[in-house]
Amino acid sequence: MKKVLILNGPNINMTGIREQGVYGSETLENINLRVAEHAKSLEIACVFYQSNSEGELIDHIQSVRDGYDGCVINAGAYTHYSYAIRDAIAAVTKPFVEVHMSNIHAREEFRRRSVIAEVCCGQIAGFGKIGYLLAVSALRELL
Amino acid sequence: MKKVLILNGPNINMTGIREQGVYGSETLENINLRVAEHAKSLEIACVFYQSNSEGELIDHIQSVRDGYDGCVINAGAYTHYSYAIRDAIAAVTKPFVEVHMSNIHAREEFRRRSVIAEVCCGQIAGFGKIGYLLAVSALRELL
Amino acid sequence: MKKVLILNGPNINMTGIREQGVYGSETLENINLRVAEHAKSLEIACVFYQSNSEGELIDHIQSVRDGYDGCVINAGAYTHYSYAIRDAIAAVTKPFVEVHMSNIHAREEFRRRSVIAEVCCGQIAGFGKIGYLLAVSALRELL
Amino acid sequence: MKKVLILNGPNINMTGIREQGVYGSETLENINLRVAEHAKSLEIACVFYQSNSEGELIDHIQSVRDGYDGCVINAGAYTHYSYAIRDAIAAVTKPFVEVHMSNIHAREEFRRRSVIAEVCCGQIAGFGKIGYLLAVSALRELL
Amino acid sequence: MKKVLILNGPNINMTGIREQGVYGSETLENINLRVAEHAKSLEIACVFYQSNSEGELIDHIQSVRDGYDGCVINAGAYTHYSYAIRDAIAAVTKPFVEVHMSNIHAREEFRRRSVIAEVCCGQIAGFGKIGYLLAVSALRELL
Amino acid sequence: MKKVLILNGPNINMTGIREQGVYGSETLENINLRVAEHAKSLEIACVFYQSNSEGELIDHIQSVRDGYDGCVINAGAYTHYSYAIRDAIAAVTKPFVEVHMSNIHAREEFRRRSVIAEVCCGQIAGFGKIGYLLAVSALRELL
Amino acid sequence: MKKVLILNGPNINMTGIREQGVYGSETLENINLRVAEHAKSLEIACVFYQSNSEGELIDHIQSVRDGYDGCVINAGAYTHYSYAIRDAIAAVTKPFVEVHMSNIHAREEFRRRSVIAEVCCGQIAGFGKIGYLLAVSALRELL
Amino acid sequence: MKKVLILNGPNINMTGIREQGVYGSETLENINLRVAEHAKSLEIACVFYQSNSEGELIDHIQSVRDGYDGCVINAGAYTHYSYAIRDAIAAVTKPFVEVHMSNIHAREEFRRRSVIAEVCCGQIAGFGKIGYLLAVSALRELL
Amino acid sequence: MKKVLILNGPNINMTGIREQGVYGSETLENINLRVAEHAKSLEIACVFYQSNSEGELIDHIQSVRDGYDGCVINAGAYTHYSYAIRDAIAAVTKPFVEVHMSNIHAREEFRRRSVIAEVCCGQIAGFGKIGYLLAVSALRELL
Amino acid sequence: MKKVLILNGPNINMTGIREQGVYGSETLENINLRVAEHAKSLEIACVFYQSNSEGELIDHIQSVRDGYDGCVINAGAYTHYSYAIRDAIAAVTKPFVEVHMSNIHAREEFRRRSVIAEVCCGQIAGFGKIGYLLAVSALRELL
Amino acid sequence: MKKVLILNGPNINMTGIREQGVYGSETLENINLRVAEHAKSLEIACVFYQSNSEGELIDHIQSVRDGYDGCVINAGAYTHYSYAIRDAIAAVTKPFVEVHMSNIHAREEFRRRSVIAEVCCGQIAGFGKIGYLLAVSALRELL
Amino acid sequence: MKKVLILNGPNINMTGIREQGVYGSETLENINLRVAEHAKSLEIACVFYQSNSEGELIDHIQSVRDGYDGCVINAGAYTHYSYAIRDAIAAVTKPFVEVHMSNIHAREEFRRRSVIAEVCCGQIAGFGKIGYLLAVSALRELL
Repeated sequence: MKKVLILNGPNINMTGIREQGVYGSETLENINLRVAEHAKSLEIACVFYQSNSEGELIDHIQSVRDGYDGCVINAGAYTHYSYAIRDAIAAVTKPFVEVHMSNIHAREEFRRRSVIAEVCCGQIAGFGKIGYLLAVSALRELL
Repeated sequence: MKKVLILNGPNINMTGIREQGVYGSETLENINLRVAEHAKSLEIACVFYQSNSEGELIDHIQSVRDGYDGCVINAGAYTHYSYAIRDAIAAVTKPFVEVHMSNIHAREEFRRRSVIAEVCCGQIAGFGKIGYLLAVSALRELL
Repeated sequence: MKKVLILNGPNINMTGIREQGVYGSETLENINLRVAEHAKSLEIACVFYQSNSEGELIDHIQSVRDGYDGCVINAGAYTHYSYAIRDAIAAVTKPFVEVHMSNIHAREEFRRRSVIAEVCCGQIAGFGKIGYLLAVSALRELL
Repeated sequence: MKKVLILNGPNINMTGIREQGVYGSETLENINLRVAEHAKSLEIACVFYQSNSEGELIDHIQSVRDGYDGCVINAGAYTHYSYAIRDAIAAVTKPFVEVHMSNIHAREEFRRRSVIAEVCCGQIAGFGKIGYLLAVSALRELL
Repeated sequence: MKKVLILNGPNINMTGIREQGVYGSETLENINLRVAEHAKSLEIACVFYQSNSEGELIDHIQSVRDGYDGCVINAGAYTHYSYAIRDAIAAVTKPFVEVHMSNIHAREEFRRRSVIAEVCCGQIAGFGKIGYLLAVSALRELL
Repeated sequence: MKKVLILNGPNINMTGIREQGVYGSETLENINLRVAEHAKSLEIACVFYQSNSEGELIDHIQSVRDGYDGCVINAGAYTHYSYAIRDAIAAVTKPFVEVHMSNIHAREEFRRRSVIAEVCCGQIAGFGKIGYLLAVSALRELL
Repeated sequence: MKKVLILNGPNINMTGIREQGVYGSETLENINLRVAEHAKSLEIACVFYQSNSEGELIDHIQSVRDGYDGCVINAGAYTHYSYAIRDAIAAVTKPFVEVHMSNIHAREEFRRRSVIAEVCCGQIAGFGKIGYLLAVSALRELL
Repeated sequence: MKKVLILNGPNINMTGIREQGVYGSETLENINLRVAEHAKSLEIACVFYQSNSEGELIDHIQSVRDGYDGCVINAGAYTHYSYAIRDAIAAVTKPFVEVHMSNIHAREEFRRRSVIAEVCCGQIAGFGKIGYLLAVSALRELL
Repeated sequence: MKKVLILNGPNINMTGIREQGVYGSETLENINLRVAEHAKSLEIACVFYQSNSEGELIDHIQSVRDGYDGCVINAGAYTHYSYAIRDAIAAVTKPFVEVHMSNIHAREEFRRRSVIAEVCCGQIAGFGKIGYLLAVSALRELL
Repeated sequence: MKKVLILNGPNINMTGIREQGVYGSETLENINLRVAEHAKSLEIACVFYQSNSEGELIDHIQSVRDGYDGCVINAGAYTHYSYAIRDAIAAVTKPFVEVHMSNIHAREEFRRRSVIAEVCCGQIAGFGKIGYLLAVSALRELL
Repeated sequence: MKKVLILNGPNINMTGIREQGVYGSETLENINLRVAEHAKSLEIACVFYQSNSEGELIDHIQSVRDGYDGCVINAGAYTHYSYAIRDAIAAVTKPFVEVHMSNIHAREEFRRRSVIAEVCCGQIAGFGKIGYLLAVSALRELL
Repeated sequence: MKKVLILNGPNINMTGIREQGVYGSETLENINLRVAEHAKSLEIACVFYQSNSEGELIDHIQSVRDGYDGCVINAGAYTHYSYAIRDAIAAVTKPFVEVHMSNIHAREEFRRRSVIAEVCCGQIAGFGKIGYLLAVSALRELL
């Protein structure tokens, strides 16, 4: 069985609470449950982690190197400026799949650039919670 | 059963032939077969169309309005400058899912901007042929 | 009697159908009828042509050289990037009047620049279908 | 009968005198006479005002709120940088039609951007004095 | 008792009339009354002046040099491009406090830059009419 | 009685110590005492928190949702690039007032842009410690 | 004898009073006296005019057409954005010499661009009041 | 004998007719005859194709892969924005030589950038019809 | 004996593990040993600290004010956007020397700008682990 | 017989030595021999000159005015910034042909702009040493 | 008697020969004679030097430090990019006056920026050879 | 024993004379003596060369290819625009270390970009004359 880290960045813990028009009404906990179930059906075990701290996210990305087969990452707003997260991913030799619940390419200008995209395998944006399921499926193919 | 148009733009007909390191070695025909099969399992009937012509792509996008429930579109290089394709999609009230075989956000600067993203539901990039399967799955959820 | 080409570009065939808030609810056919009538009152015979294809639009622009006294052109989204259409107009020595149904200078940034303006006599934007009538009137004065 | 303000900005009083290749050889007075006549035929009464002063132009724009049914404005060079004039128009709920005698989109870079376009109904540029006639016709349709 | 000039620029005289969603429904006169009262409680005498003319605003700014202890200025749209007003303030050695009723940093791009900020002590934006009261309080501390 | 969070970001704990010419000589503790007193006179209870960590600031911003009536925030240098803090504020439905002790619009170019301004009610900059008092007054009016 | 207009723009009336390190300590009146004397020795009669109003400056520039042989202009801060003044000069067929007391090319970025330079014969900057004398000498040669 | 495609894009069919000062007075047919003759002397057989349609040009570029030893391409205005043509050339492993009759680097800004240069062997610009002859000679050396 | 803080930012803890072609194969611990030895020979005592957290780095930079004679800092990717770290260094009156193992000026565009350079004494880049030794030598001279 | 200067700029003397993958393995001397031979066959006498000095290149360009019928110039890296060389060419009324051995339009961004192109007849880039031969042929046609 | 260096840069030796419409028909030698005469009348002795070489110009600028009282410099095209010349002037503590025969602010974009202006006292542009006379007069005042 | 070229560019010969606050008060000769001594202790023989001429600097850089083991280069202001020097370094296969006495990253914008950095091993900036010593030490490690 493969082991995958589902890593969520700043304010994703507010999903289901904040701006429901943009991010949907389901809480992160519920989404995680659904992702775990889907992953299990693909013989993937998921570990979930969310943090608002850039440093802690980097710590967890580094842990993927030895502890996981791959990672699904929604870096939240850090996506757009955290070169430190980018470097952390580059330092790990496992596949990373980038997920965004909203279609970042259809929102404010600053959200259209992902500084971590260059070091990820691919990107899925705009499908809400479904994005995580698609990402796990994609990762399944990449492993 | 839902009916979906799988629309491919310029040079996608060269898939499996051109730059295999970037686009993989499977031909578009084979990919289409696999997509059709996957779609069928989701109770979706696919129609496939590829063209190098911007005008013909627009004609087909317009046909989605009355003839289909949704569309998976890989507009190839037109993605980056065809505001005409963008306007065509905007004129149709059915969901469009944008697919790119390569991770356009990790390539040349000009490929990182999609002028059609603003009028699509979401975007999937970097997973090669798998991207089409994920797109059909995503569309399934959107319908 | 003068002879004028009324040339419409991509997606203008969807007028009356697409985004009615922006483009009005009258179809292109009806607009054309009204334009023909108005032109006739000014002793101008109109030929109407619409295409989604950049190449076909260029073919028709080139035909103005020998076949018409002038041209009213709504190049749709090609307005903003088709230097090929621009060059085609420059190659013709007859007057061209640029029309846009919406006020392109009050919309998205990319719509505010017309790459064909430099080779047209003038521009009329923002008056919906009325724009074509005004353009024919203007062309009348220029001939 | 409708009442419309024909408002001309800086240096338009030099029309017929300055750069005749660009602006024509007819004086503003003569143009006004012709506009008044045309307007009358459309059952519109015109009031004409020209000023080189940004502040006075704003005062007159504000007067449109209660004193007129609409306004035809040629803001001259203020078109390109007077956000104050823009705000004045925005504060008035009557339709404004923007006119330029030369085709500003075919001249120097700085003339291609109109900061007042966003708050006007439409724009007519490049038809010399005829532009005012077209603008009155357009306004007639908008009222 | 200190003497302060409350200087308002273009279109501020339309407050309470124009775009009430942005600028509130109270007229400038009423706001001035409330400001005068508040200032008086701080032992400050206020003189009020509003003009749509850049030149007149400069004249009044210059008068602060010898006639006032400080100035509260809402330069309206001139804020964004009037380097002449900037130079006028720089020529005066009394403190200026910049006020904007709307939060200019949360509106159109062009409103986010104040060319007069560099020569003012501070800026208060986004609190509607209350902004003037806060500005007088701030000026009180600066004197 | 209303409850308000006074949130200070990176290096604000050095106030009174660092660059006194820019930030004044009073320590943050003393400023807080004065703010608390002023707030109390307006029937507002203040809670003070300072952190150099972006993540911790986000945690506290999120706590405003259920624990406070509003927030005065001086995000320090994070103001200029932390889209994560911006998203946190956007996720909370309570009013935020942005404060800066120095006049950020009169300093280095990078300080003139606030990425959090768009999700705050208003901004007060350039009045040193007094800015906090004005912000509390402003918040009082907004509640 | 030739007749020349010496035209000064916004805040030049503060010369000798404002920022003496930048603009010197002599008043505009004294400078004018010295210029008149120098001009007389070159058989040039000078008329002096200063205004803070863009509109009035334009009025006076237009008067050069019929009333003067040439013009020395220091447009103050309008130099950097008044396309209306530029158009006024372009409408006049007499030579204009641009003067700046400070070296605008060695100051803030926004001062380094003159929008009126393109329609003036030449520019003299950085020599304080002497600049006017040099400009009159230069104009002498151009006439 | 080698086989080479001479591919001409939009408006090149107007050569000898349009703007003779820029493109010369010889027709494309005559130029082709001369090129064929020159090529023959180098043991190269030429096939000539011209189209105004981006899609058709792409179709023909793709045909070079199996049908030709190399290609001389004058993509006309598509040179400056057609990333689709660029991708088509990149998909073919035969040498492409880029030709422009005018010196595109000495004309309008938008003509100075070729988006297909990166995937061509070299570029020849500014020598009119002679450019095609030089290109065939160059291709001769590359084969 | 002088006391110096050797401060390392995000992902520097991966040195010797990640991208060895760029950063070398020696671990941070070994590098630290070698630095300590070299420093000792210059009568400098080193304290070493590494963190992935921006906030913690700021905390440690602030501690230099009272606890150290100087600091060698490799801020990792924060170098390129952390204005908060910049402000922290500016708040301390001790010399800071900036070190980068790779030659940041020869890598991606975003790495070529250091936002902390303006508040550091100097910068050493491109010499791998040797950079730390050079930095300590440089600091020795500065103290 | 015509007389032509073959002028080579900085580092072209290293051809055949430096970066052979980019510039080929033949030395400049050998290339010159081949060029001389080719020129002779076209009844052109060549004079060869190479210098690393911008000033000396300008001296030689100026000598073309009276001493030569035309010039083939490879200005090396000066191509991209030497406006002085540009002005020198503009001062000479003989035809200049610009040559680059590598395809400058397919390399680093800074190499894609030639500041001398505007004053040359045409440009040949990307064909290695063959470029000089083509240039001589082109010049032959231009003379 | 004061001693002044009149320093001319690249291609100024072609004055009177090249582009006479821009630079006049008098040779540099004649201009120098006239300048010497004028200078003498102001009790200034002139030394003249012209070079096409940036290095030699720098050598001569450095010589101003000990050998001259001031310098009139026309750096030709180096004006626009030679930061080395700028640094040379900055290293000398004598006044430099910048002269341009043409009005550089009314020509191509690249000519409008002078990188040496920041280290010169003032600039005179657009008066042809007269500019040198004005510059000597200006220098007379500065000494 | 290794042999190294210490190459200094424009105006470095003024060190100890010009702007002492920026570059220190020691002359280049004295610095060279100190560098020679330090190099000797590392078994490196130094040759020193300084020139204000770009061409001569290139000549010397080319000589490194066969005559030296490496080079320490302070290209002065040429650092910021001399792509010719950059190409010269790229043509040599020996290590180059870039030195700047001042911290170029903390000065004017134009000094923050080094166009030669991409072809040097590393960069040392901001340590005055000490920089040369550090550079020699660094070069020692690289050889």
